[in-house]
Amino acid sequence: MANSLPVLTFTPSEGDYVWTFGGAPPLARVKPGDTLELFTEDCFAGRVRSEKDLVTEVCEFPFLNPQTGPFYVEGAEPGDTLAVHFVSIEPARDWAASTTVPLFGALTSTHTTATLQPPLPERVWIWQLDRERRTCLFRAHDSDIEVELPMDPMHGTVGVAPANLEVRSALVPDAHGGNMDTPEMRAGVTCYLGVNVEGALFSLGDGHARQGEGETCGVAVETAMNSVITIELIKGVPTPWPRLESDTHIMTAGSARPLEDAFRIAQLDLVQWVARDYGLSELDAYQLVTQGVESPLANVCDTNYTSVAKMRKAFLPSGTSAYGVHETLRSRAAAYLAG
Amino acid sequence: MANSLPVLTFTPSEGDYVWTFGGAPPLARVKPGDTLELFTEDCFAGRVRSEKDLVTEVCEFPFLNPQTGPFYVEGAEPGDTLAVHFVSIEPARDWAASTTVPLFGALTSTHTTATLQPPLPERVWIWQLDRERRTCLFRAHDSDIEVELPMDPMHGTVGVAPANLEVRSALVPDAHGGNMDTPEMRAGVTCYLGVNVEGALFSLGDGHARQGEGETCGVAVETAMNSVITIELIKGVPTPWPRLESDTHIMTAGSARPLEDAFRIAQLDLVQWVARDYGLSELDAYQLVTQGVESPLANVCDTNYTSVAKMRKAFLPSGTSAYGVHETLRSRAAAYLAG
Amino acid sequence: MANSLPVLTFTPSEGDYVWTFGGAPPLARVKPGDTLELFTEDCFAGRVRSEKDLVTEVCEFPFLNPQTGPFYVEGAEPGDTLAVHFVSIEPARDWAASTTVPLFGALTSTHTTATLQPPLPERVWIWQLDRERRTCLFRAHDSDIEVELPMDPMHGTVGVAPANLEVRSALVPDAHGGNMDTPEMRAGVTCYLGVNVEGALFSLGDGHARQGEGETCGVAVETAMNSVITIELIKGVPTPWPRLESDTHIMTAGSARPLEDAFRIAQLDLVQWVARDYGLSELDAYQLVTQGVESPLANVCDTNYTSVAKMRKAFLPSGTSAYGVHETLRSRAAAYLAG
Amino acid sequence: MANSLPVLTFTPSEGDYVWTFGGAPPLARVKPGDTLELFTEDCFAGRVRSEKDLVTEVCEFPFLNPQTGPFYVEGAEPGDTLAVHFVSIEPARDWAASTTVPLFGALTSTHTTATLQPPLPERVWIWQLDRERRTCLFRAHDSDIEVELPMDPMHGTVGVAPANLEVRSALVPDAHGGNMDTPEMRAGVTCYLGVNVEGALFSLGDGHARQGEGETCGVAVETAMNSVITIELIKGVPTPWPRLESDTHIMTAGSARPLEDAFRIAQLDLVQWVARDYGLSELDAYQLVTQGVESPLANVCDTNYTSVAKMRKAFLPSGTSAYGVHETLRSRAAAYLAG
Repeated sequence: MANSLPVLTFTPSEGDYVWTFGGAPPLARVKPGDTLELFTEDCFAGRVRSEKDLVTEVCEFPFLNPQTGPFYVEGAEPGDTLAVHFVSIEPARDWAASTTVPLFGALTSTHTTATLQPPLPERVWIWQLDRERRTCLFRAHDSDIEVELPMDPMHGTVGVAPANLEVRSALVPDAHGGNMDTPEMRAGVTCYLGVNVEGALFSLGDGHARQGEGETCGVAVETAMNSVITIELIKGVPTPWPRLESDTHIMTAGSARPLEDAFRIAQLDLVQWVARDYGLSELDAYQLVTQGVESPLANVCDTNYTSVAKMRKAFLPSGTSAYGVHETLRSRAAAYLAG
Repeated sequence: MANSLPVLTFTPSEGDYVWTFGGAPPLARVKPGDTLELFTEDCFAGRVRSEKDLVTEVCEFPFLNPQTGPFYVEGAEPGDTLAVHFVSIEPARDWAASTTVPLFGALTSTHTTATLQPPLPERVWIWQLDRERRTCLFRAHDSDIEVELPMDPMHGTVGVAPANLEVRSALVPDAHGGNMDTPEMRAGVTCYLGVNVEGALFSLGDGHARQGEGETCGVAVETAMNSVITIELIKGVPTPWPRLESDTHIMTAGSARPLEDAFRIAQLDLVQWVARDYGLSELDAYQLVTQGVESPLANVCDTNYTSVAKMRKAFLPSGTSAYGVHETLRSRAAAYLAG
Repeated sequence: MANSLPVLTFTPSEGDYVWTFGGAPPLARVKPGDTLELFTEDCFAGRVRSEKDLVTEVCEFPFLNPQTGPFYVEGAEPGDTLAVHFVSIEPARDWAASTTVPLFGALTSTHTTATLQPPLPERVWIWQLDRERRTCLFRAHDSDIEVELPMDPMHGTVGVAPANLEVRSALVPDAHGGNMDTPEMRAGVTCYLGVNVEGALFSLGDGHARQGEGETCGVAVETAMNSVITIELIKGVPTPWPRLESDTHIMTAGSARPLEDAFRIAQLDLVQWVARDYGLSELDAYQLVTQGVESPLANVCDTNYTSVAKMRKAFLPSGTSAYGVHETLRSRAAAYLAG
Repeated sequence: MANSLPVLTFTPSEGDYVWTFGGAPPLARVKPGDTLELFTEDCFAGRVRSEKDLVTEVCEFPFLNPQTGPFYVEGAEPGDTLAVHFVSIEPARDWAASTTVPLFGALTSTHTTATLQPPLPERVWIWQLDRERRTCLFRAHDSDIEVELPMDPMHGTVGVAPANLEVRSALVPDAHGGNMDTPEMRAGVTCYLGVNVEGALFSLGDGHARQGEGETCGVAVETAMNSVITIELIKGVPTPWPRLESDTHIMTAGSARPLEDAFRIAQLDLVQWVARDYGLSELDAYQLVTQGVESPLANVCDTNYTSVAKMRKAFLPSGTSAYGVHETLRSRAAAYLAG
């Protein structure tokens, strides 16, 4: 690691995890420009370790989806934007777990899509991770079939303390970020979050070795992560809903129910982002986004559903986003990785 | 064109177009194995030709989204599946039109998401198509900005006569296909449609030089198309909702409101397709699809919203889909194109 | 019956029923001012007659919800409004049937709210109707419990041929009316339907001895009816969505998914009705309706969900609705009943 | 007032109000059996006093919907049920205010049903309350029209601290109660709330002189209230979602989006309540509720929408609800009022 980079390391003890956004005292104070090496536990708090470990037996509600943090960012105030850049996201174990959970997921009735039907059977799948070959091995329960999928590590949950005096469960995605569960939250990406309280109080967790779009059964390939992030603060620039930036795309993430409202939020935010930062009128941006946007779903199982809107930078008028920090963060990440 | 291929050509006259799925007499009778060269008019029936041609002034409701067809497929009966393979989809003009339409689109109130607000302004954008360079040129209304996007031609609408004695407007997507508006309906893809009435009575139209996922403003880059399709009939194999197959993916398309129901339909159909044709139990298929699926939206503006679920064939157990005709159709297409 | 009233009687034979709105030739031609004595079969086409008659075994899809009609109304043209006044709705049998139907109803997954769960068990309940005491007797399956509820007869389905060249299943509620399943469709009420095609082509059916609001399990206390209606035509006055009028209330019925869209349609139509016919601005009508409206659900189980908005006439500025025919129809009904 | 009744009086000072459920220290400790005389401020914190007081100018987000409380109930533990009986709800002023609020309400786009349209105009209506004649006088803005509606005082908001370590804005309705905005919360009614934290920490506010079902424009006839409640604790009986009981009905209230999920929650809870406390199987209860239920909407404008399911006690098998306290509370209320 380069000497010039301020790098902090956080490996939480069991009692250090938090289960909410907002409402918890800071784990540490950090500064814009800091790089953080973090350990995050899996969404089961590490309790699902074999096919016998049913969630309803080994987990203790509401102690699910442990977050590493929150971090108090010096100088962060409401109306600012926090940029969290993912330098690297690496599974901390050579296995991961996925499960069905009774009355949770997209292809079952739930506590809110309430029916008289009994829940689906509860199951655990243990996936083998080959961190060198970058693969995840699926073994079927009811047959001998095995399938290998590419590893594509990501964080399901990253967020700040919410607005409106609220404290939200770490299982909830909303305007403060949280449990958005988008596979776009991978290494190389910068996540922009509007600051709602002094210090921003961001945290993250819910590592997935990989996840399909929509997280259909409600649970991804869940594993602990060793992740490196580097942060920046954009003063005086508000961000209404979480935004992401990769080398190739700008992205927005809307979270709401019904799913069309999540779509509307993400698309409107993308249209307005394109209009404000790239010099188009709103109607022209509406037209251009309509023809150029990619719209992969993130989750259709959580408290709010999350829809992502992605626009390829090559499809945009040349111009600079108000954020203007992604390249800096990429350089800093490269310096760290070259470390 | 190879002599051995039965090729039929259809260039409808103005009075030949139909505006519904079901309820119209066949334009022609065709046979499984036939290849069809078709002209399709754009969704405006060709009436929007300049920025002055507002939809509400030049178009005549309900005469929108003209369909070329319907074609009566010899031997097709309820319980069969019709396979429509897209050999080529080529814009028939060097321009295309997109518009806003009052109270239509995802980022406006509509006749069903009804509010007291006035509609957005009505606008037309004429896109220039460069068919050699395969590009679509966007010119902003309210600034001098121009942006070039890649051409990616597709058909927004393909379907058969619906079940339940119904006749549906060509603007509607549902279990019979119809106006699904997915960019996945491009050349090289086979579309599987369950047959509901004798002869299937399929038709197609609504060519788009390109379209973003979700068709946010409600209107793509609309143009007339010269398209070539080749068809096959799979006897005794029902298909509940439209399915697609490319060289790399199998795909399902669910259409419903709210959008999460469209998602559920597509994901459940994909899970059950994987379970039945690839040897997994339903719960194992649920797990594998959850981790491997791509979930791009198709439209979030039409009478029903359409959600697509895509699974990479490389992520599936080796096995043969009950359809088993995609490779044959690809070969036939190659022979045609080698012509 | 008074001599002066033109009264027509229709008791369909088995082959006379129709299963759609639109797409069927008229059963008869009638005139504004006519009074019709009608027999309507129950939604099961009379095939569920005991607890052993499971819908999936005795009924034949799509031959459900038989309609008596359609009637061609002389002089009716698109842009007019047809007024159908319910003079009386009387059960034609001393029993009625209700059932669960697999994957149908609000408290089960369905073909569109699609899950991997198995359907609920299929059951039939036969209700005894005491037409003198005006009661419906419920007998529990799994215990000896019996409960008597008041009879409150209604028609679940009344509608005209739809717009946009469509033919819709009699199971669908939409702007053309159809299977709205609101308990407000009782004797003494006038239903206003916008005419979409020459002759209007209205029909009705789906009698319920009573029904709760929302039709939760998807099926009411279904029975054949002897009903008397009297009709009127309001020339040149369009009606966008079905409206109802009783002696005490004006009502609107919106049908859509998700349910909030059905609510929006009904409330917006009520606000605009109050604004246009009672002299308030739209914003003032929005305020007054907000504080005075009753919003009982009709169905949350059909292809579209239906939400009703009711405003007590005593809560409205004095004024005359553009329809102005309810009192005339009431008088005509009284004359018939006195007859 | 009878000497034997323990009566406590709370008139909060300006700094005493709280803006959340959960997250605030108790205002006072109370005991089961206590009767409380409370003052509640209106949802605008009393700042909208004339037609010139626009919400966006005089109110300070997030300081809306002030709650009187929270009250720590001695002995209340998770798994218990708190019964709050409304003895009386009386407007504390002779006027009330209603407004439009930009991007809030059912007939406008909102921050989540996001569109590119501008918001509706912002307006204030001041209603005159005649507390003797029990009327509310509406005066139109844009005409001379006046309409008098009956007064029907209610509390829009009553709730306890939420589960899952959360703190929710007082504007949110959910399983903990909160801002349900149902006109059923009137004097004579008992509200049952499941206890999530020690002491329950209940509070209430948001008095409405009257409100239509659905609270269409988002704002009722808002006024300060002098209310009297009396409370009871039912040990060891959990309540999953808020329930209400009047002399004539049992009721449930589900809050979620989309609105059909709120409906499903309320109807399922009613079915299960009827099954468990009145001796029917779940399927028999499903059938009986389907035919007997009333389903008035509460709000279709808040963070979650609220749907109420009501079953007339006369439609139920004779039996005793597990709560068994409504009659006691009614007697206590009568004693207080006779006091």
